[in-house]
Amino acid sequence: MLLEHWQGHRRLTRRVIESFPEDKLFNFSVGGMRPFAELAMEFLKMAEPIAHGVATGEWVSSNLQQPTTKTELLALWDQATAALNTIWPTIPPARFQQVDKAFGQWEGKGIDTILYAIDNEIHHRGQGYVYLRALGIEPPAFYDRS
Amino acid sequence: MLLEHWQGHRRLTRRVIESFPEDKLFNFSVGGMRPFAELAMEFLKMAEPIAHGVATGEWVSSNLQQPTTKTELLALWDQATAALNTIWPTIPPARFQQVDKAFGQWEGKGIDTILYAIDNEIHHRGQGYVYLRALGIEPPAFYDRS
Repeated sequence: MLLEHWQGHRRLTRRVIESFPEDKLFNFSVGGMRPFAELAMEFLKMAEPIAHGVATGEWVSSNLQQPTTKTELLALWDQATAALNTIWPTIPPARFQQVDKAFGQWEGKGIDTILYAIDNEIHHRGQGYVYLRALGIEPPAFYDRS
Repeated sequence: MLLEHWQGHRRLTRRVIESFPEDKLFNFSVGGMRPFAELAMEFLKMAEPIAHGVATGEWVSSNLQQPTTKTELLALWDQATAALNTIWPTIPPARFQQVDKAFGQWEGKGIDTILYAIDNEIHHRGQGYVYLRALGIEPPAFYDRS
């Protein structure tokens, strides 16, 4: 089901975070793009607030601050993993098909807003794979979501 | 619905193909990875054969040959777009939840095999965005699936 699909992708993203040497996580990129730590923060600022918004209709922007260490980033990641597991069962089934305006800006069905968050994570995580390859580091296997 | 979600992603991938200068499409990459034309061929070799396999239970590997021009690649892309639209309505609804072994190798429900194809395209297309940025080219907007 969709939560498990999402959490499988999030486990892979966690392994990508772990694959970066700590300094490169925060300061390396290609083509003037954002370092992977900033991309990961974007995922975190979307995941729990979107789950909460779809569940409740309340759209509250994240006030998470960019951490400065890999350990702190992984801790935020794990907190969001637990929060998603807690929030998900509270989503009223009808909310997935109901159109809402996420964060007052993006109109779509609940399911489409959630899929956007997942797709955005896959998209930017793929960019992290290029950063890792450019650093000579083998990225984790894409198909492994365990 | 899922076909429209997929085709929306495929329209974006088509714009990424178009964004590459012809020579860079076939010979540029970062970190020793495949050029974007090869990634696009991977998407093509998955899309129609997977739709056909989920529809029919027949798993037939693609015999598409790598084209040498952008025009040929876009023509293959448009043929696959039409093929997906033709095949999709023939998928028996129960096949989405039925477990099958795609191409005799990858076991999963029809829906999961299709999601894998979509996710794989998003993942590698994100890598194409890095190639474009490294070339100094602004990629198409990720959120625009029109």
